[in-house]
Amino acid sequence: MKTTTTGTRERIVRATSRLLQRQGYEGTGIKQISREAEATLGSVYHFFPGGKQELAAEAIRHGDQEFAGLLREGLGASPDPAEAITACTRLLAEALRASEWQDGCPITSTALETVGRAPVIEQAVVAAFANWRAIVEEKLRASGLGADDARELAATVINTLEGAELAAQIARSEEPLHLTGRHLARLIGTYR
Amino acid sequence: MKTTTTGTRERIVRATSRLLQRQGYEGTGIKQISREAEATLGSVYHFFPGGKQELAAEAIRHGDQEFAGLLREGLGASPDPAEAITACTRLLAEALRASEWQDGCPITSTALETVGRAPVIEQAVVAAFANWRAIVEEKLRASGLGADDARELAATVINTLEGAELAAQIARSEEPLHLTGRHLARLIGTYR
Repeated sequence: MKTTTTGTRERIVRATSRLLQRQGYEGTGIKQISREAEATLGSVYHFFPGGKQELAAEAIRHGDQEFAGLLREGLGASPDPAEAITACTRLLAEALRASEWQDGCPITSTALETVGRAPVIEQAVVAAFANWRAIVEEKLRASGLGADDARELAATVINTLEGAELAAQIARSEEPLHLTGRHLARLIGTYR
Repeated sequence: MKTTTTGTRERIVRATSRLLQRQGYEGTGIKQISREAEATLGSVYHFFPGGKQELAAEAIRHGDQEFAGLLREGLGASPDPAEAITACTRLLAEALRASEWQDGCPITSTALETVGRAPVIEQAVVAAFANWRAIVEEKLRASGLGADDARELAATVINTLEGAELAAQIARSEEPLHLTGRHLARLIGTYR
């Protein structure tokens, strides 16, 4: 019984995440989420009494963890931070291609559509970006960069990855991500 | 009569652009566009017989021109490309703050929500990004950078501005854009 319950909740979160990523917040309805998750509307409201905002916030936390996992894997590929960043852009490029350019950042659309209008969602978005920056910052610190430089560079690394992922989706090409990897490596190189 | 006709079409395009920016493609309906533009549904279809896809493509071309204007203004502020880029991030930051962080990139949400599903829109998105890159590339070439370096850097400049704009909206702060300006200036500096 425990397993089934957990399974349903997770299916709902994954379905929400996928729908938000591909059609945005405004375009996604609870009924569609329940259909995609193969869950009754009753069970969706059982797990998420706060409705669509609560669901979206949870989907964003799910996306936060997914991207954090990819960042950790990439950054762990090399002790050299510049090489480690290019490992991240390679992993991102592979994942995007595998999804036929559909599954980019899981939170961008929702974040943009709810600016100033949904505090629960905004908090989850702010926390996700802070988490990703912290992972990169830790890597840069560990490789010897000063605290201010590491913090600032980490912010630009995350923002640039976001923009490059969007460009890769639009161009249906891995090239914007590979190029970004080379430029970020070059920028990081100027700090050593 | 001519003026009225032009006025109506332009109101429709502007309303579409604003709605797409703030609530995405899936969340925006033709009826809402007609209400916001204070135009009849009949006149919306008169100007845009292709419906929502044609309207969105036209709104993207409108956003393309707007952002191109901002880029040209910023890049014209200094003969030095690094200073010119920071002028762009300053203009972007001011515009974002003035809209209370609502009006970021006019095409990101729509682009993400229609990946692989709406060729007319995708063409307009690809053309907009190509236009923006060309404007930056021309500036970098004019300041003495080699053709390959200028083309590659221009792509990263545009992608990074996109990501920083999103971050500024999320943080409700100009800082991600100012930081990006400094880092892009530093990156460009390595090519001279």
